[in-house]
Amino acid sequence: MMRTLSVISFARGAPAPECLDGALIADCARAAVENDPAVLGYGAGGGYGPLREWLGTRHGVQPAQIVVTSGGLQGIAFWFEEMLAQRPGRVLVEAPTYDRSLKQLMRLGADVVPVPMDDEGLDLDALERELATAEVSFLYTIPTFQNPSGRTLSTERRRRLVELAAQHALPVLEDDPYGLVRYEGEAPPSLHELEGGELVTYASSFSKTVAPGLRVGWLVLPASLAARIEERAVSTYISPPFLPQAAVHEVVSRGAFEPNLERIRGLLCVRRDAMLGALERELAGRATWSRPEGGYFVWVELPVDAGELLVRAEAGGVTFVRGADFFPASGGERSARLAFSYASPAEIDEGVSLLATLL
Amino acid sequence: MMRTLSVISFARGAPAPECLDGALIADCARAAVENDPAVLGYGAGGGYGPLREWLGTRHGVQPAQIVVTSGGLQGIAFWFEEMLAQRPGRVLVEAPTYDRSLKQLMRLGADVVPVPMDDEGLDLDALERELATAEVSFLYTIPTFQNPSGRTLSTERRRRLVELAAQHALPVLEDDPYGLVRYEGEAPPSLHELEGGELVTYASSFSKTVAPGLRVGWLVLPASLAARIEERAVSTYISPPFLPQAAVHEVVSRGAFEPNLERIRGLLCVRRDAMLGALERELAGRATWSRPEGGYFVWVELPVDAGELLVRAEAGGVTFVRGADFFPASGGERSARLAFSYASPAEIDEGVSLLATLL
Repeated sequence: MMRTLSVISFARGAPAPECLDGALIADCARAAVENDPAVLGYGAGGGYGPLREWLGTRHGVQPAQIVVTSGGLQGIAFWFEEMLAQRPGRVLVEAPTYDRSLKQLMRLGADVVPVPMDDEGLDLDALERELATAEVSFLYTIPTFQNPSGRTLSTERRRRLVELAAQHALPVLEDDPYGLVRYEGEAPPSLHELEGGELVTYASSFSKTVAPGLRVGWLVLPASLAARIEERAVSTYISPPFLPQAAVHEVVSRGAFEPNLERIRGLLCVRRDAMLGALERELAGRATWSRPEGGYFVWVELPVDAGELLVRAEAGGVTFVRGADFFPASGGERSARLAFSYASPAEIDEGVSLLATLL
Repeated sequence: MMRTLSVISFARGAPAPECLDGALIADCARAAVENDPAVLGYGAGGGYGPLREWLGTRHGVQPAQIVVTSGGLQGIAFWFEEMLAQRPGRVLVEAPTYDRSLKQLMRLGADVVPVPMDDEGLDLDALERELATAEVSFLYTIPTFQNPSGRTLSTERRRRLVELAAQHALPVLEDDPYGLVRYEGEAPPSLHELEGGELVTYASSFSKTVAPGLRVGWLVLPASLAARIEERAVSTYISPPFLPQAAVHEVVSRGAFEPNLERIRGLLCVRRDAMLGALERELAGRATWSRPEGGYFVWVELPVDAGELLVRAEAGGVTFVRGADFFPASGGERSARLAFSYASPAEIDEGVSLLATLL
């Protein structure tokens, strides 16, 4: 078989192009502007009104408890800034955790404390020990199909985490961009649902369910905190671009959100299966990996240094992200994040074979 | 004549609704997504490639010297942050200056020094005195149809300002959202053109020429500085929303930008004339005001306290922004910014009459 000239990317945490329904979004963008001239003017810093209302209903909160930002990361950045200003202290994160959030925390000069994980997610005994020591500002967690590990916090641990948060009055940011991209099994309750939304802020986005280029993310949080975040938004960009937010609102208004999500699940489930199948076939006994029921990522524990493997892999035509990139200091040297969301099933087979050869 | 129940707003620095061509933008948004699937994916933090290319050509620079942000203010905020990190020092601004930029500087903890203006714009003798004293980080200026004063820096002063910048190696941010919205007279050269773009960064947006709700602004700057700003953008929001940027690119690609701008100029010139005519008729001898050849604003020097007048004006059904809001500390107590961009010519007549009655 001829090797394709292009690089096979297990690095890109992005949906495969066929996940994006260009015809639907093009028509929704047109309709959004035609139906509501307010899309073209300045407006609320907290986002496009009708979308806030829809999200409020979905989460069972008031629209004023929703802040829609330009992508999920922007909202997370505002929340980090606000929380560090309100309650200075150490920031607890999962080890490993999402590298872009970690960079935000570094930029803000936060004292970041990594808390270990196992296959069931965050290690709550370790968390409890950290909470007993010096002052903590907040916990940042991605409990479902975590980026980068693909792990999901068990329901039992979710209940205990919420109890710990209450005991210690610990603010928690629950980052959940992948939760709806589930291929099998039953979704556990969100921390936000379990806790009631006083201490836990919920963050998500339409990047994985409609299109990442639209950059539409949101936060669900107490009204007083939402008002503070909205103030930060106004002072940074007056109002977010309403056109993408209104296009998303048009998608949901037409009832196209669920069918589109179902289609995406189908496309990505095949890729997840291809990745797990190829790993089993090529690497059983030589490496271990997570087996996520959804999301984009598999976390692989390697018998060798991941940075050294990456250099040879890139030369051979396949890329991934080194585990070490997801730790604030040391850690993850023999781990790799493999995204199965972007490459085709055939590329996944080929890419994993190549990695196995290099090992 | 019946008084309309709605408030007449001289406060909103926004275009009148009829300036926004919904049909054009709706169709351009649709076409943008249909023509280029890349609009829906993650991409460059510095903005939508084809728009960067178009802007690069327009400004005679490389696309890598253009950073397209979500609205002009976001780019200004990134530039402020970057410059204060690179060269800590006092920040010189016009007195008065744009309140949102001022708030950004306050948020960043900048030591803001107001430099006085007269009818020809920034007082360069005063600027030179400031440059001779303690270390200065940069100058922020809006030389054309300034917000809030409506004043334009004369060509002679522009030349001298550029010389002063060169002598003192002074970085300058030239904020120019209004320059193209000119109703009469000839445009002076931009500081960026005069200086060559080494020290002067140029900032503008499509808010006044296409639609503010699209939130598409841009910076023109040296490639090395552009790369730094782009890094800040990536770490804040990965990439900006491409849909509004691609819609704007579709507008310019169709050759619709200039005709649309000509139409906007026509609509707003009538309002500018209505405002200047009403002021002359109602307030000659009792107040003085700027006579801008373009933009959105007239600055009025009042015989009374503007805050006190505003309370009575709002009760009577007309609003404006107090001059004091545009100064970092004291100043502007007897001044008002009247925006003529949003109200209709009839409302402008009525609103100015009401203000005259209250004086």
